Amino acid sequence: MDPGWFVSVEDEVVEVEPAPGVFMRPVFGEGLNLSFVRMLPNSEAPLHEHDEEQIGFVLSGACELTLGDEVRTLHAGDVYVAPPRVPHGAVTRDDGCRIIDAFAPPREALRELMEQAMRRRSSPDTTA
Amino acid sequence: MDPGWFVSVEDEVVEVEPAPGVFMRPVFGEGLNLSFVRMLPNSEAPLHEHDEEQIGFVLSGACELTLGDEVRTLHAGDVYVAPPRVPHGAVTRDDGCRIIDAFAPPREALRELMEQAMRRRSSPDTTA
Repeated sequence: MDPGWFVSVEDEVVEVEPAPGVFMRPVFGEGLNLSFVRMLPNSEAPLHEHDEEQIGFVLSGACELTLGDEVRTLHAGDVYVAPPRVPHGAVTRDDGCRIIDAFAPPREALRELMEQAMRRRSSPDTTA
Repeated sequence: MDPGWFVSVEDEVVEVEPAPGVFMRPVFGEGLNLSFVRMLPNSEAPLHEHDEEQIGFVLSGACELTLGDEVRTLHAGDVYVAPPRVPHGAVTRDDGCRIIDAFAPPREALRELMEQAMRRRSSPDTTA
């Protein structure tokens, strides 16, 4: 049986920037993962879709979320549920926002981004 | 294709109390669910285990979390990953805490609790 484990998000989880001003710290289990997102003011997570189901929760701030045909301004305490292959994206205005996204199965594109970031960290480019 | 949907946790999601002083508002997708947990000071979510994998994130406050053979005091920003069938539980001391738990597949015991609560709400006991 796999033992459980602990991690401190800000201290121990690498942060990736998949779009300008959009930062994510992902934590992976076997069948699901969380992603701790912060969007700076006036940033955009462009519309996209994927096979993984996603449930997101706004921790603080505000964003304008597009989900399928609907656009809503979300604030702290709001949840959105994006079934597989439903296009979604977010933009921020004067406020940034913090979001927790949960994915099942784990979001593979995010794992790849994180692994790239960890490889860069362990093999810094010494030609710069 | 299922459309996406939105929900405001505090305003629209029923709250259940599976143990004294331990409150949960669950939101269900198809393949995963979130549960918004608040534990009052000096409350306990007794040690238990289940087939669903669980990743939890402490939003605020503190709790003492048991996970398998390990016991740790967790604070805001800490994550625990409980694989299927690994026993886990939490107690609070002087502080309460708020946690977001994610489960995949969705935690069926929590769905049953929520459905019971919704039935009670729609058919209040008029004998009291």
